[in-house]
Amino acid sequence: MVQNDGDTWSSDDTFRVLIASDIHLGHLENDAVRGEDSFIAFEEVLSLAVQYDVDLVLLGGDLFDHAKPSPSCMFKCTQILRKYCLGDKPVSVEVLSDQLDNFSRAVNYEDPNLNVSYPVLSIHGNHDDPVGQHGVSSLDILSISGLVNYFGRCSDYSRVRIAPVLLRKGRSRLALYGLSHIKDQRLARLFLEKKVEMELVDDSGEWFNMLVLHQNRADRGPHNFIPENVLPSFLDLVVWGHEHDSQVFAAKDVKRENENFLVVQPGSTVATSLAAGEALPKHCVLLQLHQKEYIVTPLPLKTVRPFIFKTVVLSEENLDQEDVNEKEKVQSLLTEKVNEAIKEAEILHSGDPKQPLLPLVRLSVFFQHEGQDFNRVRFCQNFNGLVANPKDILIMKREKKFRERKERIDESSDVDIGGAAAEAADVESLLRAYYAAQPAERRLAVLSVRAVTEAVRDFTLKRDDDVFRRVLDAHRQRAVDLLLQSSAETVDEVDEQLKTCKEALDAADEESLRTVIAAAATAAATATKAAAATKKSESILLSSDEEASPSTRARGRGARGGRTRARGRGAGRGARAVSPPAPAPVERRSTPRRSAAQKTSSWLQALTSERTTRRRRDSSDIEISDD
Amino acid sequence: MVQNDGDTWSSDDTFRVLIASDIHLGHLENDAVRGEDSFIAFEEVLSLAVQYDVDLVLLGGDLFDHAKPSPSCMFKCTQILRKYCLGDKPVSVEVLSDQLDNFSRAVNYEDPNLNVSYPVLSIHGNHDDPVGQHGVSSLDILSISGLVNYFGRCSDYSRVRIAPVLLRKGRSRLALYGLSHIKDQRLARLFLEKKVEMELVDDSGEWFNMLVLHQNRADRGPHNFIPENVLPSFLDLVVWGHEHDSQVFAAKDVKRENENFLVVQPGSTVATSLAAGEALPKHCVLLQLHQKEYIVTPLPLKTVRPFIFKTVVLSEENLDQEDVNEKEKVQSLLTEKVNEAIKEAEILHSGDPKQPLLPLVRLSVFFQHEGQDFNRVRFCQNFNGLVANPKDILIMKREKKFRERKERIDESSDVDIGGAAAEAADVESLLRAYYAAQPAERRLAVLSVRAVTEAVRDFTLKRDDDVFRRVLDAHRQRAVDLLLQSSAETVDEVDEQLKTCKEALDAADEESLRTVIAAAATAAATATKAAAATKKSESILLSSDEEASPSTRARGRGARGGRTRARGRGAGRGARAVSPPAPAPVERRSTPRRSAAQKTSSWLQALTSERTTRRRRDSSDIEISDD
Repeated sequence: MVQNDGDTWSSDDTFRVLIASDIHLGHLENDAVRGEDSFIAFEEVLSLAVQYDVDLVLLGGDLFDHAKPSPSCMFKCTQILRKYCLGDKPVSVEVLSDQLDNFSRAVNYEDPNLNVSYPVLSIHGNHDDPVGQHGVSSLDILSISGLVNYFGRCSDYSRVRIAPVLLRKGRSRLALYGLSHIKDQRLARLFLEKKVEMELVDDSGEWFNMLVLHQNRADRGPHNFIPENVLPSFLDLVVWGHEHDSQVFAAKDVKRENENFLVVQPGSTVATSLAAGEALPKHCVLLQLHQKEYIVTPLPLKTVRPFIFKTVVLSEENLDQEDVNEKEKVQSLLTEKVNEAIKEAEILHSGDPKQPLLPLVRLSVFFQHEGQDFNRVRFCQNFNGLVANPKDILIMKREKKFRERKERIDESSDVDIGGAAAEAADVESLLRAYYAAQPAERRLAVLSVRAVTEAVRDFTLKRDDDVFRRVLDAHRQRAVDLLLQSSAETVDEVDEQLKTCKEALDAADEESLRTVIAAAATAAATATKAAAATKKSESILLSSDEEASPSTRARGRGARGGRTRARGRGAGRGARAVSPPAPAPVERRSTPRRSAAQKTSSWLQALTSERTTRRRRDSSDIEISDD
Repeated sequence: MVQNDGDTWSSDDTFRVLIASDIHLGHLENDAVRGEDSFIAFEEVLSLAVQYDVDLVLLGGDLFDHAKPSPSCMFKCTQILRKYCLGDKPVSVEVLSDQLDNFSRAVNYEDPNLNVSYPVLSIHGNHDDPVGQHGVSSLDILSISGLVNYFGRCSDYSRVRIAPVLLRKGRSRLALYGLSHIKDQRLARLFLEKKVEMELVDDSGEWFNMLVLHQNRADRGPHNFIPENVLPSFLDLVVWGHEHDSQVFAAKDVKRENENFLVVQPGSTVATSLAAGEALPKHCVLLQLHQKEYIVTPLPLKTVRPFIFKTVVLSEENLDQEDVNEKEKVQSLLTEKVNEAIKEAEILHSGDPKQPLLPLVRLSVFFQHEGQDFNRVRFCQNFNGLVANPKDILIMKREKKFRERKERIDESSDVDIGGAAAEAADVESLLRAYYAAQPAERRLAVLSVRAVTEAVRDFTLKRDDDVFRRVLDAHRQRAVDLLLQSSAETVDEVDEQLKTCKEALDAADEESLRTVIAAAATAAATATKAAAATKKSESILLSSDEEASPSTRARGRGARGGRTRARGRGAGRGARAVSPPAPAPVERRSTPRRSAAQKTSSWLQALTSERTTRRRRDSSDIEISDD
């Protein structure tokens, strides 16, 4: 039975899709009070999928809070997916596109060894994107387990080409474009340079065209978000992940020519920060599709912990500033506000027995002078057991600074630096500032600051333990290659050459730097392997084919290899691109550099010992060692 | 078709079990040359299971090299398991015992949503044991995914009681006892104290009784291994995991009264250290069982990388010690030895195209004086591309020291401290020594050294990121509880009380310390939750049942909860224990300590601010803070 006004639609021809996003499994999983919140909400989302008997579940990224979820998190996620998504109910949706191209493997409900009733399709977000040397995402693990159909992953960041998942149910046809998270600055530039292409189906007018992406939608500074108007107009509907405030409204419509597509922003299912946007009611979404007509129905989540956010501006309250007891007055005012919030949270009780009732409370307090400040830790302890976040109820800001900054911004531009952006001093900017502040002789001599800061970010945010080794290998390989090509003989010449190499790296823009590093990393890995496989010797008879086969095979099994191969076929399927045809991609050195590799070790040894000796006197830089 | 002499056995009555152990998936996974070795061997093991058409695959622990495998490792493991173990072939083995009791859930081949052809049963080893606050092993994830049947996990370390998995195939019956890894010292003591019980089946004489365990078998010091004679004599066969040297011989037999059980030690499938034992040929094992008769057939693995281990004693070589060029002579001798080893490795080429051919070579060199030592890094670089481990071909030891230590050992005892044990200075002993060497005022004032060193071990070996927080919480909770019970009022009295508390911890033996810490950790978590759930207030109407329900439910879903509950039932199934019945287990404080928790915060605050202030002058100890 189709809901709302769609009850005249034949259910055999009507897609029913449950949409949710930013589930952040494992968020605060070790918190005694809040540890289960993300899992409870995920369970509600999937139980709604069963309740509304949908054909598909579509997730907009950030299923996991960490790129490397804890074993416990992975366990619970698998458990919940198996509980709700497996079963005997047949799936009535047909995949018309190349499944290997879309998902790196067959769609899970066609796997003869698995019984899937509710197929989940997901892109990755910025929290669960691929990590490590082998570039594996947690979604890859769920995909190989047959529990999630992972799509929309991009392997070439210099040019994005999206082949849709083509789905048919009766007379309705859905072209689903997936764009897993790419750094906003990079993607914004790619859009600007018209390097993002979506393959159109031949009879695209007959298809309902839908895009799911995971990017900044709110303006967070120039080139740090994706403006809606850069997305192609042939789209009927866009599912926007990443933004945590739920912005989704009931709608029954069909897109007419020259009209904008509808944007559905489900928002997160768990509050991962105590910002105002997270205090809005949370939803997942039921989308019903009948040919080109759609009905969007927000489904309020009933198991989300109540969250009350209040802003208190002390200058607007009637406080006598001359009073010696001003501190006490402020505290009793704020105590009252917290108690009000706790009271208000009761309105948010849904009656669902699984809903955690202890509320989240956040007061954003603007104060005027130090006399109004007080021991916040002690204040918060009064609410132990009354709120779910006793340690961070308060955030205190100096009103003057806030007003000044606000005025400065209002004067200089119309950019809206709101809560999230104002606090978003990222680790890269901090490191850049640090290195820029160093005197010349203490700056990095070989490594690119940008590459290092990006590595630090990947290490901290994505727990990519191996990233430093890869970046160092890449720099070393590049330096050695350049030295081999040059005529440098003396130590001074080598130093000069290294300086040139470093300057070239610094001058490179972000994109070409990444390309260079990736190419050098590949070359470094290949060189090691090639040296291992091909160095001739009297003492062994070594077939390089045999030696290379295990790893080659293994790589072919992985997600990347399959995807790239399949994409080539996809383009020949009769699809045409919206943007002009792509030029040949930037060439990457992936052939084994045998001669260079053979020469490498002695050069490296010279380089290493020289630099190590010199560094010992000034150890402010990162050493290049042979380990 | 039954192999060997068993061809008169009806295959309907004959169990066929493929046994392997210590697969160490992910070992050196980022090594460009050796990264795939562990996965290649695992794939061979499972392909042998298919080739020999076995009923079950039995693994002896350490399927993973790390307790928290990388996403890439988890991906490849899942991929290999799905490739070989799923399919339409029916499984003809019946599970007669309580599956929930054995595996925390149904055996995977009875799952209606999965098609399993080759069921894998596994215990955990010391490398893949449960980690984190929620105690989840990687095997739990494979278990909830339906790919492995994880058994033999013990939840009570003060008394071990093993309920067998009871399996029937036609007229043959197999009682399979699983004992996942427990620290050797602890398990040895439990055996000594007769606190390890194996539930006997009523008609145990009719059953083939088999135990799989993962412990030190070789003598690595007093109470640091499990002597075979402590295992009960009713066992017919023991599969011994953990020891990496493969010791398994063809046998066709039946155990007669007063005879010892047969021990099958499969060994590892990948060399994880370059020790002599790892250079022995590697195997998995085909076990065929017909009622009480068995046939054991070692199956040599053909995809294992060749490994040659040589010992060189320089004093036994004809080197002229007066020669000025002694260094060069030593180097050319060793070069010759390495080249010999590379040559010898060719004999180990199996012809399997998946076998990596570049050999591992290790020379264990005993030298006499510094004049024989040389730049080993440079020496090893000569073998880049000729061996798989160019960086660690050599291990050099002073012959004199070795001889002295050997003589000392020979004189003092007949304990054989061999290669592995001699190098096994564990992190706990190092830390203990460190703290013991500190002057009194710099020693730990509140924390137990033993608890801290165990935590460091869990952090380093098991990557249990959360262990410090748990141990600190436990100590704090215990200290606060004791302070609340005492009449301490002044700072000096509090200090005195803390000292007493610390002394009690130091005096506790390992087992009771663990019990105390576990109880305090539970109490700390419960206190937080109880405080959250029950503190009364006018402003909210909070049902503690509702608040507590999500996490309680979630815990019930986990492995531990299910196991404990099921075990109670298992005992009533007509099984009887070999050891005398267990007394009531050590009581653990798991009831919410509401009044204590309510009082805690102010006490803690006083304690924290006091100690923080004082510590600032002497920051040599770990601070107790309220975070």
